[in-house]
Amino acid sequence: MNETTSQKTPVTLLGLGAMGTALARTWLAAGHPLTVWNRTPARAAALVDEGARAAADVAEAVAASTLVVVCLLDDASVGEALADVDLTGKDLVNLTTTTPAQARDRAAWARERGARYLDGGIMAVPPMIGVPEAGGYVFYSGSRELFELHQETLAVPAGTVHVGEDAGFAALHDVALLSAMYGMFAGVAHAFALIRKEDIDPVSFAPLLSGWISAMAGPAVQQTARQLKSGDYTTDVVSNLAMQVAGTPTFLTTAEQQGVSPELINPYFELMRRRLAEGSGEEDLTGVVDLLLR
Amino acid sequence: MNETTSQKTPVTLLGLGAMGTALARTWLAAGHPLTVWNRTPARAAALVDEGARAAADVAEAVAASTLVVVCLLDDASVGEALADVDLTGKDLVNLTTTTPAQARDRAAWARERGARYLDGGIMAVPPMIGVPEAGGYVFYSGSRELFELHQETLAVPAGTVHVGEDAGFAALHDVALLSAMYGMFAGVAHAFALIRKEDIDPVSFAPLLSGWISAMAGPAVQQTARQLKSGDYTTDVVSNLAMQVAGTPTFLTTAEQQGVSPELINPYFELMRRRLAEGSGEEDLTGVVDLLLR
Ligand SMILES: NC(=O)c1ccc[n+]([C@@H]2O[C@H](COP(=O)([O-])OP(=O)(O)OC[C@H]3O[C@@H](n4cnc5c(N)ncnc54)[C@H](OP(=O)(O)O)[C@@H]3O)[C@@H](O)[C@H]2O)c1
Ligand SMILES: NC(=O)c1ccc[n+]([C@@H]2O[C@H](COP(=O)([O-])OP(=O)(O)OC[C@H]3O[C@@H](n4cnc5c(N)ncnc54)[C@H](OP(=O)(O)O)[C@@H]3O)[C@@H](O)[C@H]2O)c1
Repeated sequence: MNETTSQKTPVTLLGLGAMGTALARTWLAAGHPLTVWNRTPARAAALVDEGARAAADVAEAVAASTLVVVCLLDDASVGEALADVDLTGKDLVNLTTTTPAQARDRAAWARERGARYLDGGIMAVPPMIGVPEAGGYVFYSGSRELFELHQETLAVPAGTVHVGEDAGFAALHDVALLSAMYGMFAGVAHAFALIRKEDIDPVSFAPLLSGWISAMAGPAVQQTARQLKSGDYTTDVVSNLAMQVAGTPTFLTTAEQQGVSPELINPYFELMRRRLAEGSGEEDLTGVVDLLLR
Repeated sequence: MNETTSQKTPVTLLGLGAMGTALARTWLAAGHPLTVWNRTPARAAALVDEGARAAADVAEAVAASTLVVVCLLDDASVGEALADVDLTGKDLVNLTTTTPAQARDRAAWARERGARYLDGGIMAVPPMIGVPEAGGYVFYSGSRELFELHQETLAVPAGTVHVGEDAGFAALHDVALLSAMYGMFAGVAHAFALIRKEDIDPVSFAPLLSGWISAMAGPAVQQTARQLKSGDYTTDVVSNLAMQVAGTPTFLTTAEQQGVSPELINPYFELMRRRLAEGSGEEDLTGVVDLLLR
């Protein structure tokens, strides 16, 4: 081990699936001493060739470094893998996708076992890991102090964004952004369905579609956030709820004429109509958020 | 009238609502002789002060210029306003929002009356008109030759994108992009609802949310377009349909724990599940598009 390597924080990584393997390579490339463990040991072989040390079992892996990063399938596999392992004095960073409640429970579980805990939510797919220009990053939550202690090491595979002391907030941010993305995917699927039977090249149509979504997202999201914060949903200009509800028949009729089911766009229109019926025609669309809360 | 003004194409504009008024100002500012008409004449007063000529009735307005731009409430109001007007030799450019079928019918209607016809779909709100950096534009469809003849004049208020000879295509593009935008809005509403009761500042959350949507839109839309074109929906890497369906309980459980109705995200998950049940687990999400078509 040369001097440069020995100055870098040692990392233990549990889980060598698609994501764990991508993470591992970045720490190796950056010269961090890396100990890996995977339930199926064969998946460690290539990384060992690249300089990682493969632990014989999970306890040995955890013992090898203070900083222990976990990237397993789900919360249950984390509990299973670490059930009988001594975590005293460890800094556990759990990048496994979970719900916020699971993250909070896992933080308490780690504390009871004498470990400090950070939860993470990975906003990237494996090919984006170690590629800063791809724009992937990881949400972290839990102690800010602990986050700052390890930030340099955690920043090796992807950007880092600390979103609060509540251990559940990384997962909540992760789930919120991905849920919104599926909403966007739903709109995109509807749009492609509308042109599917026409003589329109989907590849030429694509940049128009994604350009419009990207251009609209920033201002709309910012406006919604400001209104939710102030509690004043009334809109100064442009297209209020009443006008937008009046426009929905054009969308539904077009879908019908193109033979496209309205099932992906109508639920939102339905909430717009409900909010209008409550007498909020002068407002923006922001009130729909409150209708979702029970 | 000075010489510069007289060289610009004269324009007649029917309809001085929020959008029509914004359009009018840009042609006046660019020195086009502008004749305006509005059902409620009072709305023309300010524009007359700015140099427009107000016609006494719609027939006089249409008679004043070869190029007649229409921006009324809906297709019915266009039919009503122009019912008894001689359109012989006119170039009618209809920027009123309609369905594709209405646009095609209106094109045939104009042809029968001896007019040439372009249909338009405005991808902007009034404050974006005449502000090139705002990124608004207008879809046009119908004869490309006629479009090119008037392109310079039509480009004064906003960018122009010609999307086909079929008169319905501008409206179809318009409706498709706006439908997709409402899908994105639905996802955004769900995301804000998830954090609504937490100690998370929506204004700090906003750029994370819109940044993620904007970053994901381009690659996802392009990939979907390529797969629709080739007919091969199988995915090489990353997250296939089976994996993504396996991930949906995290989104639904989180919604439940945050007290948020899943009604805006579940319809898309439902189609993902249906496609998976058909044995398409190795595919991308593209197959959802075909499930929407009946
Ligand atoms: N891939 C992505 O695009 C992506 C993006 C963001 C977040 N994530 C998250 O990152 C985490 C890992 O994802 P991945 O793509 O690497 O998944 P993956 O390729 O399916 O790998 C799953 C990993 O979990 C291990 N595992 C499963 N059950 C286990 C158990 N009971 N005990 C011990 N180990 C167990 C597997 O070990 P074996 O090799 O022995 O099966 C494997 O190492 C997940 O939480 C995922 O949601 C992934
Ligand atoms: N505003 C936007 O954000 C926006 C964005 C994209 C596209 N558009 C489209 O642009 C078009 C105009 O929108 P706008 O915002 O200007 O609407 P608006 O402010 O509500 O104005 C509607 C216009 O239509 C006229 N009108 C309504 N019914 C009529 C009838 N039966 N006969 C004659 N004239 C009639 C109105 O005349 P009176 O003054 O006499 O009522 C007024 O000039 C619509 O198709 C809209 O969908 C608007």
